[in-house]
Amino acid sequence: MPETTGLTCREEVRPGDREEVGRVVRATGFFSEEEAMIAVELVEERLAKGEASGYFFLFAEQEGRLLGYACFGPIPGSVHSWDLYWIAVDPAAQGKGLGRQLMAQAERLMARRGARRVYADTSSRPQYEPTRAFYLAQGYRQEALLADFYAVADGKVIFVKPLPA
Amino acid sequence: MPETTGLTCREEVRPGDREEVGRVVRATGFFSEEEAMIAVELVEERLAKGEASGYFFLFAEQEGRLLGYACFGPIPGSVHSWDLYWIAVDPAAQGKGLGRQLMAQAERLMARRGARRVYADTSSRPQYEPTRAFYLAQGYRQEALLADFYAVADGKVIFVKPLPA
Repeated sequence: MPETTGLTCREEVRPGDREEVGRVVRATGFFSEEEAMIAVELVEERLAKGEASGYFFLFAEQEGRLLGYACFGPIPGSVHSWDLYWIAVDPAAQGKGLGRQLMAQAERLMARRGARRVYADTSSRPQYEPTRAFYLAQGYRQEALLADFYAVADGKVIFVKPLPA
Repeated sequence: MPETTGLTCREEVRPGDREEVGRVVRATGFFSEEEAMIAVELVEERLAKGEASGYFFLFAEQEGRLLGYACFGPIPGSVHSWDLYWIAVDPAAQGKGLGRQLMAQAERLMARRGARRVYADTSSRPQYEPTRAFYLAQGYRQEALLADFYAVADGKVIFVKPLPA
């Protein structure tokens, strides 16, 4: 990740990531409190169970402060599909390509572990238009729309990106 | 469930259900060993965490022997969508409408807890044609097909059934 000075990347999950992940996810303003708690729970699951949790992380930080992260894992029952559970960038660090870099590096880590298809879900609501545009720009395509999935008039959009073998 | 003599229905999960669920799921011949282990894990999660596990069960048994069961739960992040994770009937008890009765009773239990949409996934492979026909016959409709989701040429078919308020 050469484009932002002093940026470091790590996969190891540390206890302090609980608070930092919660902070970044809430700061985006894109997620409900329930969703933020789920994001933190995934960190806790990983801390408790290691890779057996099924959750893998990629953190981007600068001077010890989390700027953004991705969380992903193999989909149980599938031989080659992985789920991109979370990708979030602190608003203070947005607009510098960090999301794109996190995504590209997460895809490399997934591919190395056998992923051939990456799925990412988001909401169909108008305020998630930038999220959907982000996925499309990273080579994902919309595979399905589950109407009213999250709530009435709040559907689930499923994106997929095939990875090279 | 009046159609089969001596059949009893229960929601409570007991330690013995681990073995019985594994036995029934494997007996169907419809699931991989990995899937059978996941089915048993959901029972264990429920035994360990209770309703906080997010897994709810409905067992149909006769003289203490499990004939079939359903496992379902609320989808995190959704206000009204539930997932029908498992429905399986021992081959020795099939053809008597037990699957249909389990489904109807599971839907009543879900509706009572606020479910307005039930999702059920299955494989697109030819051998799952009876499963897909079963969902369609119970009022589900196909909402999406995720190609190559489970493996090459093994897609995920997503069914949904709206429940009355």
